[in-house]
Order: sequence, then C-alpha cells, then structure tokens
Amino acid sequence: MTKETPDQGRYAARGVSATKTEVHDAVDKLDQGVFPGAFCKVVPDVLTGDPKKCNLIHADGSGTKSLIAYLHYKETGEASIFRGIAQDSIVMNLDDLLCVGATGPILFNSTVNRNARNFDGKALAELINGNEAFLAKLREFGVNIVSGGGETADVGDITDTVTVDSCAVAVMDRDQVITGQKIVPGLAIIGISSAGQATYEDFPNSGIGSNGLTSARHELLSHYYAEKYPETFDKATDKQYVYCGPYKLGDTLPGSDMSVGQALLSPTRTYAPIITKLLAEQPEAVRGLVHCSGGGQGKCLRFGQKVHFVKDKLMPLPPIFKVIREVSGTSWKEMYQVFNMGHRMEVYCPHESADTLLEIIRGFGVEAQVIGHTEESQREGGQNHLTLTHEGEALEYAL
Amino acid sequence: MTKETPDQGRYAARGVSATKTEVHDAVDKLDQGVFPGAFCKVVPDVLTGDPKKCNLIHADGSGTKSLIAYLHYKETGEASIFRGIAQDSIVMNLDDLLCVGATGPILFNSTVNRNARNFDGKALAELINGNEAFLAKLREFGVNIVSGGGETADVGDITDTVTVDSCAVAVMDRDQVITGQKIVPGLAIIGISSAGQATYEDFPNSGIGSNGLTSARHELLSHYYAEKYPETFDKATDKQYVYCGPYKLGDTLPGSDMSVGQALLSPTRTYAPIITKLLAEQPEAVRGLVHCSGGGQGKCLRFGQKVHFVKDKLMPLPPIFKVIREVSGTSWKEMYQVFNMGHRMEVYCPHESADTLLEIIRGFGVEAQVIGHTEESQREGGQNHLTLTHEGEALEYAL
Repeated sequence: MTKETPDQGRYAARGVSATKTEVHDAVDKLDQGVFPGAFCKVVPDVLTGDPKKCNLIHADGSGTKSLIAYLHYKETGEASIFRGIAQDSIVMNLDDLLCVGATGPILFNSTVNRNARNFDGKALAELINGNEAFLAKLREFGVNIVSGGGETADVGDITDTVTVDSCAVAVMDRDQVITGQKIVPGLAIIGISSAGQATYEDFPNSGIGSNGLTSARHELLSHYYAEKYPETFDKATDKQYVYCGPYKLGDTLPGSDMSVGQALLSPTRTYAPIITKLLAEQPEAVRGLVHCSGGGQGKCLRFGQKVHFVKDKLMPLPPIFKVIREVSGTSWKEMYQVFNMGHRMEVYCPHESADTLLEIIRGFGVEAQVIGHTEESQREGGQNHLTLTHEGEALEYAL
Repeated sequence: MTKETPDQGRYAARGVSATKTEVHDAVDKLDQGVFPGAFCKVVPDVLTGDPKKCNLIHADGSGTKSLIAYLHYKETGEASIFRGIAQDSIVMNLDDLLCVGATGPILFNSTVNRNARNFDGKALAELINGNEAFLAKLREFGVNIVSGGGETADVGDITDTVTVDSCAVAVMDRDQVITGQKIVPGLAIIGISSAGQATYEDFPNSGIGSNGLTSARHELLSHYYAEKYPETFDKATDKQYVYCGPYKLGDTLPGSDMSVGQALLSPTRTYAPIITKLLAEQPEAVRGLVHCSGGGQGKCLRFGQKVHFVKDKLMPLPPIFKVIREVSGTSWKEMYQVFNMGHRMEVYCPHESADTLLEIIRGFGVEAQVIGHTEESQREGGQNHLTLTHEGEALEYAL
C-alpha cells in the first residue's frame, strides 16, 4: 500500500520542516559559542565568571506529542497520561545535554502554554506533578537534576490545546565538554536502542521518542479524531493528510503487544544513566555522542568534519516505525529523516573500544550494537555525508 | 458607556484567569525553595554546589501580545514589529528576577512555538535578532545578560500563530537575595511609572507592559480583525467578547499621540537600569520590590506577612488604560487586577528613604512617586489585604 508522495512531501504538507532550514538560516548567523561544533551551544561561564568553566542553557519540548495525550485524555478522562508528556519534554533537553557531556548537576524549568477551557486544572496538575516525579526518579538513578520552577500561561487565543516546553541549565568544566571535534573518520558508531525496557524503566518502550509525532499521529490515527477533535489539527493542512490512518488509540499495534496509543505515547527514553556510566568509566573511548532527535538518522551530518557516516548495520526496526511506513507509504529516505527508526542515541568510539562500551550499555538491559562506522568524506570540499543501508539499498544524505 | 458585566467576568469570558487559582493550587504543593516568601522561587545552588549561593531559573513569555504583533505584520508586512515581542518576553523574566535582587549576570534562552505557514522565516528572524539586539542594549546600560541559545518548534497543529517564551537563570549570593520578609507594616510604597520615556529608551511607552493583553486586544480592536484573522481568537469565546472594540491598529488612541497599535505594542519597559542603581547605592533602603505583572495592582498581596497595603496616591492613569475602561465598561476593580494601571514596579522602603530613592529613579527620566504605604493587617489572622483608592473610592482586595 504505497501512496504517491514526493520525498519529504508528507511532513512538509503538514507545515513541519524536517530539516529546519529557515531556523538554521536565522540562528547560524548568531555567535556560535565556545565550541561551535558541539551538539549544544556552549557559552562562556556567564553565571559565575570562571574562565575554566562554561554554561549551557537548552530549551526543547514535547512538540505535538501533547496532542496525542490530549486525545487520550478526552477519550478516557485519564489525566495521568500527561505525566509521560512531562517526561518527553524533560528528556528532549536532558539527552541533548548528554551529548556535550553534561550529565549533571542540571537545573530545570518548565513552561506550559494552554487553552484553559480544553486543558484543565486536573491535566495541568498531572503535568506539574509528573515533572517532579520524573526528576525524582532520575535522581534515584544518579542523575543530579533539580526543578527550579515553571510557568503556566493561559493563551486560549493562541492554542486550542497545550504546548509543554522545558529549559535545562548546566555549569561545566570546559575540559569535560564533548566538542564534536573528535567525530572523525575511522570510528565505530554504536547505536543504543530506543525500544524495549531498560533496567531503570517501569514498562517497555515502543521507541518513538518525541520526534516525528505530527507525522505519526496523522498517519496512524483515524479520521474519527479529526471529526471529534477539530482543535487538534491545522485547518490549513490538506484534508488528505489529516488523521488519514486506520487506527484508533485502543487498537493493537500490528507486530506488538502495545496498543497504538501506548506505542505513540511511549515516554521518550532517557539515556542519562547509561551515558553517565560510559563517561565515568570510559571517558577516553567516548569520542562523540549524537542524539538522533530532529532530523532523525541524518542528525549526525551536522557534527564532525569531512566525515562520511556509514550506517550499514542498523538494528531491527521496531514495529511502530514499520506500521507508520506501511500505512503512510512515506519513502524510506524520509522515514529515516523524521524518525529515529530504532536507535535514538549514537556513541562514536574507536573500533577496539566498542565491545567494552557495549557491555556497559547492555548492563542496563538495553539493546545496542555497532550500527556503522565513519570514513573520509568522498564529497567535494570534504562535505559531511551519510550512506544508510536499508534492506540492502543505500540511501544517501547530506545537509 | 458602561456594559453590564460582573466583576472579573470579561477576563474569564475569554478563557483567562486573572487570579490563576488553578495554577497556584498545583504549584503551591511543591517545594517552595530556600526563601518561600520571595518574588521568584529560589533554590539551593544546584549548579555549582556553593552553600553560600543559590540559583534562580525563571520562565515567562509575551503571552497573547504576540497576536497583536501578528495582526500588525499581516496588515503591513512589517516583520520588525516582532522585535518588540522579543523585548516583552525578555523583560517579563528580567523584571521578575530584579524583585529578588538578581540584577545579573543572567543567562537567557528563548523558545518559539509557531505555525510555520502563518509565522514565516522573516518574522522568525526578527524575533531571534530582536532578542540579541535587546540583550546587547541591556549590556550597554550595565545589565549583564547573555543569550545561551533558543529553540523554534513548528507546531501548526497546536497553534495558528506563535508563542514567544523565555527562560532566565542566575546564580546569586544568598545574602543578596531580597526575600520578601522585609515587606512589613510601616513602609512607604514607591510606584515607578510604566509610561513615558526613560533615558535608556528610544521612544515613549504607553505603559501597557505584557499583562492583560488578551483583554486589551479584544476590548479595543474592531471586529474587522475577527473576520479577517479568525486564527487569532478562541472559537469557544462568546462572539460578544471577540474583537468588540471600535478601533483599528492605525487609529489614534484618544488622549495620546500614539496609534492604538503603537500603544498596545509598546514593548514592556525594563526597570533593570533603575533597580540596579538603587540596589548599588541604597541597598539598605530597598526593603522589597514588587513587579505588578499578572494580578496587576493586587500582585503585592502574595508578599510580606500581616500587611495592609494602602495605595491611596496612585499616579495619573495613562491614556491606554482609560480607553480600555471606557470602551469595555470593565469594573475598576477588575481593571486594577488585570493591568498595571500606571506603575509596573513598586519599591518598598522606609518613609525617610523615599526622597533619596525618588531622586535616583527620576534621574532616569521616569516618573515616580510615593503611591501609598503599608500598615498592620486589619483582617482576622493577619491576612494580607489591599485598599486601593480610585477617584476617591476605596476598592478592597485580598487573595
């Protein structure tokens, strides 16, 4: 069942840019900080003025994943579903910070923009308490992250539903920063699974994370939701792209024990306990970390110089991504640019260190394997590029 | 021209809570930090672990003021109007931080949630560059505030327009924190005008700030905007409350040299240069600071203990507030709970220090006067309460 769609077409048709060209155009002109090639912007130590230290302040949120929780809440009355959205918003920051080596202490804050009529006090309380509970759990697992407050704005003229955003701050020693400069030719790439259940998790994860959820929601869910909850989609989107899937939230996801709702709402896994241990025990081996968030498997292209990323031994595709592909007919090339497709965290290391790192990772009950390697760029001027092998077919990517 | 409206009715009719009861209910159960009575939540020094220091992480945004800029942009094509929205979002954080004595260094971050179809790259660039420009200007005036990055999310299914939020972080010496404990009976209250032109400003300000803008927009602006820009209001709001005013953005605001658009979009004044000087030169005299933001003139009620706030010598009402009152028929009691009504910053000081502080403030070209005083609470259990005199009539407020 393949629909006719141009590459990157379906994502763009819903008003979302997978490559964020416009945003990068505006931001790339700004000062790029102390380590321009690092995964997050790193600035001098504004906060305490120590020349040996630096600061990170990072913002991200749960994006449109909140809308799936909203649908679930409206259908079932279960406000506790928003606890997962709190986790999504936190992890989208925390796991970006991990990629520069910031494993805590981290100071955290959250912002909710809501339509108070549709997103009520009960839902809000779950979001706020969910934040606190997830941070407490992270602290149990050795991640020093503390909430310093939050803000809720009633902006019913701007949204019919809710956005959930967070900001995370760290002060780091400059010599501890993972700068991205060590992502060079000649390394192994370890992928750490986004699916399954880690020793520090209470239930299995579909692997979905918090990227590509606009697409996943519309592709999987039935037009029933468009008719019943018109507040959950952009009226300017062509109807054929709005909730055009076959499923209701309670339906079983093919190839899985989860419902479609459970799979779509799986809270984004944090890799913080794993990365903290890797950096503590094998600091020399960890040459680079890439969080495959916005941009999916193409995220790596922005890091390192003159690198040809070769991902030719990817992990098995979790069912959620198979199903999205099947019902949408999205091209495989676009699928890998929108979704993490099985691993959301990459560790770049010398080939000879891979086994040691894999053993540590697997100690957390999470699947991991060498999914590829880096070599010299074959492009003119040494431009970074990526060759990703999907079922024997090579897909090519560059910025 | 007075319409029949119950107290607090018009604000609530638009889905906005002036008193934020629901939000306070959820948040008040959380840990209140190191100085529970302070204007902002203050937490231990998570970031560097110094027992003599503490941390602040504060989030706020431009709220629905972005919608007025959006209308202006759509009508005129002038994307630069969003530079003022960047300022609004920054100042809503900065001026809250001032109230605990945090005058910098401050690390800053911004988050934009946008509908990429309606809020385009040109507008986004102005917002991002506007942030940088305003922060640079603050630094010129001695406020050490630095941007550490930002995030833009394309969430067209959540918003038809745009939200602009910020987060600001500071590390402070604990003994420098203004804790709110010194707001006691027996002090003078200085109000610092929200209108006019400070020596550090490029043009005059209407005084509007960034609070009450949902109300101000609908009360002042013509139904023309409802018909032309249906994406800028909540369809669940009763039509009688939607853009029910007489004005277009280009019309002259009665009693003023400004247009209605200029008045509504006056970027929120920061008091940072003034407060920085007051705290540097008269630290003992400044017993408390209250930013009259959400909650307007009733904001003070949350600070100090067993205090009767008496505001009986308010400054002249700027034209923008007169006009909103006149066209809306909103009760005066509600007007003072929604808008700053003429002064957005209050300094609590001994009566004998008032003249010295006023001289410093007026050096910045900003009007200021003793607008009232504090005395012992006359309520049972010593509950804080406020008596505000409007044109000879006493209005009573309590939490």
